[in-house]
Amino acid sequence: MNFCSHCGSPDLHLVVPTGDNRPRQVCSACATIHYQNPKIVTGCLPVWEDKVLLCRRAIAPAYGLWNVPSGYLENGESVESGARREVWEEAAARVELDYLITLYNLEKINQIYLQFVGALVDGQYGVGEESLECALFTEDDIPWSEMAFTSSVFTLRRYFANRRSGRKLLHRACYPEE
Amino acid sequence: MNFCSHCGSPDLHLVVPTGDNRPRQVCSACATIHYQNPKIVTGCLPVWEDKVLLCRRAIAPAYGLWNVPSGYLENGESVESGARREVWEEAAARVELDYLITLYNLEKINQIYLQFVGALVDGQYGVGEESLECALFTEDDIPWSEMAFTSSVFTLRRYFANRRSGRKLLHRACYPEE
Ligand SMILES: [Zn+2]
Ligand SMILES: [Zn+2]
Repeated sequence: MNFCSHCGSPDLHLVVPTGDNRPRQVCSACATIHYQNPKIVTGCLPVWEDKVLLCRRAIAPAYGLWNVPSGYLENGESVESGARREVWEEAAARVELDYLITLYNLEKINQIYLQFVGALVDGQYGVGEESLECALFTEDDIPWSEMAFTSSVFTLRRYFANRRSGRKLLHRACYPEE
Repeated sequence: MNFCSHCGSPDLHLVVPTGDNRPRQVCSACATIHYQNPKIVTGCLPVWEDKVLLCRRAIAPAYGLWNVPSGYLENGESVESGARREVWEEAAARVELDYLITLYNLEKINQIYLQFVGALVDGQYGVGEESLECALFTEDDIPWSEMAFTSSVFTLRRYFANRRSGRKLLHRACYPEE
């Protein structure tokens, strides 16, 4: 942020506003306080029979690597509708959300992952614009060494653990660990 | 947003960028795309014996009404550490987080609530700067008609239901309902 988005002044300073306890970008010209907050990455692991659906990324970062369909939550969306949208955009598939499995904090880059497990409707999928390919994998076939993000590895491992124990637990973690 | 925060130009237009599917504020001078995303409100319901701790707000909005300690997640925080911070700031109390009880979507105002249940350490609390007072309530004593936000009512009702059933379920909702 180089200029105040409210008045256009370059006179921004990192100061602790009155009544606050941490530094913010504050405009000296119009007094606007510019807050910055973490973003939610929402997604869903689609399940069909004993398999899960992954997408190989056609975009940076992690081009060519496999991922649980996920992306930034948009204004006006619920976390749930964002997860369904991401599955549609990345895999041209519809899911019925089952349960929230992952709360994964990437504090260093201000991202909070919220991922669901969902049923792949009719087992149908295609390839979204942001994907090179999409495919169903059994646990033994998961391309563990070609996963895009640690969040996907976390969600996959916990999903298979949940399935073995017959439970629908939410798993929480921080990366790096707190 | 009246000016580009990157280059200071007033030449902003709401357009759908190439490869995107929704309108964004795009700067015609420097081509920066300004994304806007929902914010996380994180919090925790502190529990002590058969009581829960609520705070009466000393700030707008909902001045004078009761609330589950909650506030915006900050950059650099996990959802968990933000929840502990909010309890500290609003009630001068420490909590040991137990489980995530609430995912509550306020899509219309781009807020996503994530609230935990936690144990109030040693039953100790004070009054934070943002609170007029803090107090422990049994279920029968909750000031239902003086609650600040629907999210707090939702979390409280679900907490008592969980306690009755002996379960630690996550509850999800949208307000207004989807
Ligand atoms: Zn300004
Ligand atoms: Zn610009």
